[in-house]
Amino acid sequence: MSYNLLKGKRGIIFGALDENSIAWKTAERVHEEGGKFVLTNAPIAMRMGSIKDLAKKTNSEIIPADATSVEDLENLVEKATEILGGKLDFVLHSIGMSVNVRKGNHYTNMNYDYTHKGWDVSAVSFHKTMQVLYKKDAMNEWGSIVALTYMAAQRVFPDYNDMADNKAYLESIARSFGYFFGKDKKVRVNTISQSPTPTTAGQGVKGFDGFIAYADKMSPLGNATAMDCANYTLTLFSDLTKRVTLQNLYNDGGFSNMGVSQEVMETFMKDSE
Amino acid sequence: MSYNLLKGKRGIIFGALDENSIAWKTAERVHEEGGKFVLTNAPIAMRMGSIKDLAKKTNSEIIPADATSVEDLENLVEKATEILGGKLDFVLHSIGMSVNVRKGNHYTNMNYDYTHKGWDVSAVSFHKTMQVLYKKDAMNEWGSIVALTYMAAQRVFPDYNDMADNKAYLESIARSFGYFFGKDKKVRVNTISQSPTPTTAGQGVKGFDGFIAYADKMSPLGNATAMDCANYTLTLFSDLTKRVTLQNLYNDGGFSNMGVSQEVMETFMKDSE
Amino acid sequence: MSYNLLKGKRGIIFGALDENSIAWKTAERVHEEGGKFVLTNAPIAMRMGSIKDLAKKTNSEIIPADATSVEDLENLVEKATEILGGKLDFVLHSIGMSVNVRKGNHYTNMNYDYTHKGWDVSAVSFHKTMQVLYKKDAMNEWGSIVALTYMAAQRVFPDYNDMADNKAYLESIARSFGYFFGKDKKVRVNTISQSPTPTTAGQGVKGFDGFIAYADKMSPLGNATAMDCANYTLTLFSDLTKRVTLQNLYNDGGFSNMGVSQEVMETFMKDSE
Amino acid sequence: MSYNLLKGKRGIIFGALDENSIAWKTAERVHEEGGKFVLTNAPIAMRMGSIKDLAKKTNSEIIPADATSVEDLENLVEKATEILGGKLDFVLHSIGMSVNVRKGNHYTNMNYDYTHKGWDVSAVSFHKTMQVLYKKDAMNEWGSIVALTYMAAQRVFPDYNDMADNKAYLESIARSFGYFFGKDKKVRVNTISQSPTPTTAGQGVKGFDGFIAYADKMSPLGNATAMDCANYTLTLFSDLTKRVTLQNLYNDGGFSNMGVSQEVMETFMKDSE
Repeated sequence: MSYNLLKGKRGIIFGALDENSIAWKTAERVHEEGGKFVLTNAPIAMRMGSIKDLAKKTNSEIIPADATSVEDLENLVEKATEILGGKLDFVLHSIGMSVNVRKGNHYTNMNYDYTHKGWDVSAVSFHKTMQVLYKKDAMNEWGSIVALTYMAAQRVFPDYNDMADNKAYLESIARSFGYFFGKDKKVRVNTISQSPTPTTAGQGVKGFDGFIAYADKMSPLGNATAMDCANYTLTLFSDLTKRVTLQNLYNDGGFSNMGVSQEVMETFMKDSE
Repeated sequence: MSYNLLKGKRGIIFGALDENSIAWKTAERVHEEGGKFVLTNAPIAMRMGSIKDLAKKTNSEIIPADATSVEDLENLVEKATEILGGKLDFVLHSIGMSVNVRKGNHYTNMNYDYTHKGWDVSAVSFHKTMQVLYKKDAMNEWGSIVALTYMAAQRVFPDYNDMADNKAYLESIARSFGYFFGKDKKVRVNTISQSPTPTTAGQGVKGFDGFIAYADKMSPLGNATAMDCANYTLTLFSDLTKRVTLQNLYNDGGFSNMGVSQEVMETFMKDSE
Repeated sequence: MSYNLLKGKRGIIFGALDENSIAWKTAERVHEEGGKFVLTNAPIAMRMGSIKDLAKKTNSEIIPADATSVEDLENLVEKATEILGGKLDFVLHSIGMSVNVRKGNHYTNMNYDYTHKGWDVSAVSFHKTMQVLYKKDAMNEWGSIVALTYMAAQRVFPDYNDMADNKAYLESIARSFGYFFGKDKKVRVNTISQSPTPTTAGQGVKGFDGFIAYADKMSPLGNATAMDCANYTLTLFSDLTKRVTLQNLYNDGGFSNMGVSQEVMETFMKDSE
Repeated sequence: MSYNLLKGKRGIIFGALDENSIAWKTAERVHEEGGKFVLTNAPIAMRMGSIKDLAKKTNSEIIPADATSVEDLENLVEKATEILGGKLDFVLHSIGMSVNVRKGNHYTNMNYDYTHKGWDVSAVSFHKTMQVLYKKDAMNEWGSIVALTYMAAQRVFPDYNDMADNKAYLESIARSFGYFFGKDKKVRVNTISQSPTPTTAGQGVKGFDGFIAYADKMSPLGNATAMDCANYTLTLFSDLTKRVTLQNLYNDGGFSNMGVSQEVMETFMKDSE
């Protein structure tokens, strides 16, 4: 499907690694809807992924950037506006990584250097990106910035580890910076809190498959897919949501407002008998 | 603008009174986006308003219904599916009225017959509408039901009176019924919590103009207009938000996540000096 | 244990039915902490329960009142202040009942007369109680009013039926009336959102035992008991929480902020294998 | 007043600087209620403050500790349990500092080294404290850990700068670690979100006096004082709140659930005329 929803709009998409990535699906859908963009990812992620296929498919250029480096981000924003021929209308931040998770450190046994690294990559990178965009006045009025997050920022999912805290910080940045970006530049900033999604990055979390099944049974409409997230992001990039800002928006089949579902209750009871 | 976002979709729009109504703007925009619908309002509201002009403009029929009458709602849903030639894809509930407000009864001096009437009209009507749609199996899979609400459901706005409690009940219905509508029929149910909007209905609330100015200064992007709300509703009726359900979504220029804005603080300080 | 936390304080306790009731435990604990009170319940509930034993044990009087009757409530408040020898310092509202639940009507198949009755008993009774207290100026400054609620007001528990909506309305009343009671009389109003508790009233809800087991496994500290709730209520009645108002306070072993616990996940996985 | 609410309980109190400190008032009240504790603060803060007077007054010892140093925290916990003669029942974390605020860096112009430092002091120190307590098994069952926070974690207060993000991270830690501390050790972890309070630390924030006046007018019961916070903390340290955990509890005169108050609206309108 295509509605030309983003015709004439320009942007930057962070975090497309491979075709399982939400950012990858979003890039494809933005392209179908008429938007132009630059792709970016960390140099190391680019070596692992197949982002070049995506660039070719969507007729876009790649600018590598370490999102923790203000210098890299400045270069990215400068090049992107140059390549795309003007200020930006949309930015997708889809970056997250916990070294403690990767190394198997339990939440009660953190290595604080790892905690610092994960926080910098997963959360502060969003502030840095916005600070560079803001200082360079690189966003058009009524532009839209979206970051992906997860409900562990509000509620406990024991295996999510310090990513929960990072996401809480990320969502706070969205509100704090969103205020100034709104007031001074008429740009909206929101986060999408997505169902657990079987991306390559998500795989790192222990027991992830079981958890995906659980979330699916808890959600009246089932888990939102990467494609659902891409489509939802389109609406936030479009001109149809101009006054939606500072929000954390759940795209999760209803999970976030469930206490318990009949299906989970039945599974639970069957076992307990 | 038109994206053909709702091409081929059918629905019912409650509550269009005059051209200031959010429901009126929504009907116009749904029409532009290719959706077909039936308009409905209470018989008494129809005599006051100019809904026939809207019907003509959008090439749609009007079916009067008292939204507190299950019988009227049954008739509405039957006729609507007949006229539109199939099951429904979207429904907008935009109904609210407090007799206590109209009669000038303070919140601490309620007449409980009035309280009952306002609750029935403003909140239970949403349950009745969904119960009729559900029982008649009148919604298509991945259909979308939206009700309009206000943040007084979460936070105190002293002049909003018992409408605050009615909106809290309404939002609870959205979650409670949304669960079963999602599970059993794959239909999503959400509420949009809109900025204070200078509709004809809104005028009833004391000091409303001043409050609109206050909300505007508090919101980094300013108050969302009726047109903004219409556009946001389109995204929720479209196929781009299929897994968004049970949510209360703020369309308010950021007000809901503000503690205080610089502008409000400055106005406040100037006066206090 | 006793700290004399409520020495010299006077109040009214609604809803003690039998020794499983939260209100019963609260009355016992208030008595131990030095508070004096009048007990009240609906005439019909009093015939079923053993409230006279509680009255004897706590050296208190019983004044029957239908909490949906303003006249009964006026009589109650007059008599209570007379008996206790002064204005009131605390009130506990622990009343709830859904006719739809009792009659086995599914949430998608409500009888709206029953809905009305349940709403009046479970939610509006709280407004009526406060309106009578407010008009009669029957509360001392820094007095405390508490109503018991349940998290179904925020999240979906499918079997909780229209009680979810009633609790949402109740919590909204706490905020709305709490504003005026705070501003005008320096009285605080809060709700306690309690774990599912095996009271006689709770038994009415389908599959309640299984649900209690589920909630217990989800909560890091396990379900809060009736005694826990009584103790928590004491703190809200005491002078130690004078500036806590308009709040909905979870007494639930942590359930409300859990996404999933390890124990629930393990039970779920074992079954799914 | 004294209820002997904390008789026989032992703990650690962080962050008492001078008699305006919330931690100072809390120490005084804990002492009055029969609790024993060790005081701690950063070496540099101790030179500026008058913590020795407090130690004398409450008959307690001081153990300096840099709360960002795991080594210092280990020493603190070892010494404290030794001095107090057993495991701990309560801990108060009252630490916060933003270098960006101190240096006058606007939120859109952060120095990220400062951001890192503020995050480490204000938020990660809470994780480090709990990790040390947890690993050393230094808390008694049904012990209680409280950290002080501010509503900027949820809503935008423009001058609060990166402390908003730090507080969001802190509150997330309370939930994340609270789960494991609850499950494994039966210890509860909560945060108190306090009214703006004229402490020496609070003075650093721009326009703080005006903001305090604003918050006071917005809150139906007025701002909670440092003494109110001390008293509220006592209830959380007591045995009366054993099943309250993972919560963020507002002690704010009702501010958090206000949309607007009549007094703020009137001040605003007078000025706008």
